[in-house]
Amino acid sequence: MLEFDLIARIRARAAVRDDVVLGIGDDCALLAPPPGMQLAVTMDTLNAGVHFPPETAPYDIGWKALAVNLSDLAAMGASPAWCTVSLSLPEATDAFIDGFSDGFLSLAQQHQFALIGGDTTQGPLSISVTAQGLIEPGMALRRDGAKVGDTIWVSGTLGDAAAALAQWKHGKTMHPTLRARLDRPTPRVALGRALRGIATSCIDISDGLLADLAHICRASGVGACVHATALPASSALCEVFSDDERYRLQASGGDDYELCFTAGAERSDEIHALALQLGLPLTCVGKIEDGHQVRYDDVDFAMTEFGYQHFVNTFSSKV
Amino acid sequence: MLEFDLIARIRARAAVRDDVVLGIGDDCALLAPPPGMQLAVTMDTLNAGVHFPPETAPYDIGWKALAVNLSDLAAMGASPAWCTVSLSLPEATDAFIDGFSDGFLSLAQQHQFALIGGDTTQGPLSISVTAQGLIEPGMALRRDGAKVGDTIWVSGTLGDAAAALAQWKHGKTMHPTLRARLDRPTPRVALGRALRGIATSCIDISDGLLADLAHICRASGVGACVHATALPASSALCEVFSDDERYRLQASGGDDYELCFTAGAERSDEIHALALQLGLPLTCVGKIEDGHQVRYDDVDFAMTEFGYQHFVNTFSSKV
Repeated sequence: MLEFDLIARIRARAAVRDDVVLGIGDDCALLAPPPGMQLAVTMDTLNAGVHFPPETAPYDIGWKALAVNLSDLAAMGASPAWCTVSLSLPEATDAFIDGFSDGFLSLAQQHQFALIGGDTTQGPLSISVTAQGLIEPGMALRRDGAKVGDTIWVSGTLGDAAAALAQWKHGKTMHPTLRARLDRPTPRVALGRALRGIATSCIDISDGLLADLAHICRASGVGACVHATALPASSALCEVFSDDERYRLQASGGDDYELCFTAGAERSDEIHALALQLGLPLTCVGKIEDGHQVRYDDVDFAMTEFGYQHFVNTFSSKV
Repeated sequence: MLEFDLIARIRARAAVRDDVVLGIGDDCALLAPPPGMQLAVTMDTLNAGVHFPPETAPYDIGWKALAVNLSDLAAMGASPAWCTVSLSLPEATDAFIDGFSDGFLSLAQQHQFALIGGDTTQGPLSISVTAQGLIEPGMALRRDGAKVGDTIWVSGTLGDAAAALAQWKHGKTMHPTLRARLDRPTPRVALGRALRGIATSCIDISDGLLADLAHICRASGVGACVHATALPASSALCEVFSDDERYRLQASGGDDYELCFTAGAERSDEIHALALQLGLPLTCVGKIEDGHQVRYDDVDFAMTEFGYQHFVNTFSSKV
């Protein structure tokens, strides 16, 4: 499988958008951004053995590589537009390429997300994606707008992906619901769009709630108080782990790709209505306060675990 | 060295542009593209041992990772604007990060190219860059505009990078001039901009002249006739290799990152004047003709070597 064949195969299945003047096949793609819109741009890489277990199915690798980038667009309130992908593979088998493309492109199609370029190289399994979205000027959900007195919210349930990973690391069979959350996270694109004008700050939970909320606090110059017992948990998580274990997984576990956002306390009814409209739980888990730290008010954990940091914790070194 | 430290270090040195609304430090960067301009987007990855010898200096790795992407913008006639970088490293040493950043950012600064985001991960040494440029609608230099009768031009000299690589693969000391061309290619950004309205097609020579010219021919539905003896050669190349060897290196060797372009025969005087103005040799090396193939008219080579293809030729398997 040569580079040119691989690109051609993916190209044949890429979504079509009117604002793509020239897609895959030249030195660059050419895009005509809609007048007056700003661009939101993000780039994230997944390496085998660091960001996913080496035995992850090719479909799920393709899905997740795109999902983590869509999640960053969601966290800004941006509408997905175009992406490029760089795929490093030790050996390009049909089975891998087909599975990877299926996962990647099926998620892309759900969001009218056009694959406009990229490359393939021989090397250890690694996928880099650059994603671009569109956002109205001044409407982006940034990290630096949280105010003292704002309520803190999270979407969906927390800790599921970390729970699956914990099972995997202990050699156990992963619970299928938890595993699905690890392998095929759902980027909260519609929620991000709906939060424009409501949220004062927003971030996606990739490194763990406490670590990501700490990013908001640092950027906004505030502190946060979180109710551990209020953190939303799936029934699968409660089934497999004790309360103490699940609090830790929910607070420190990464890879959920839910959104954490803040909003004025007077917006709570609107946010509850939004949850019903989207069919997605939105839970108030705490409050922004004066200070510089993220603390629990109801569980006595040593707050040393501040989320996932590359070069410290990897799939191989984590225990 | 944690991910966050590394990003912060690079961030402190990134170029500033008015159209960057929000740079490194949130889920996405925010950009305000100038009204009426189109975007040119490209993504290229370099892997150690595939795209550069593992012992390449960190400065040169940073330089080259950016240069190959700037070269794609140059080949479209686009003006460099913004880039993101994903860096996978086995171990983040200060020496590597400093050298890499110096090489990457010094080239970026030459082109007012703003680094707006990216990530760092633990893994085998690999660098992915996504580059964005700006281009006036309808002015991009595409591959599909070559016409029968057009002259074929190349910038600079060809075969130098491949010559350095050939020396390296045979265990010889690389000639310093040739090595500099392999390690620190010069993206022909000013030339690409100047060719808007002159060139009928353009490509950068990354896979070798014949292979890249074949891309133009395929996209344009034409053939090409090349004079091997007319291919521009550096004195270093002529010093080290025989004529027969150098023709092959010039025709099939990749990594030069010169531009190959076509233009109507009546534009020759303009192109010669442009060469003087830019201080960069521009050499007419052949003509577009009817047909579907790229052929030599003066040297009897078996035309089986059609440039560099990943998954076939790598630094480790090439001999």
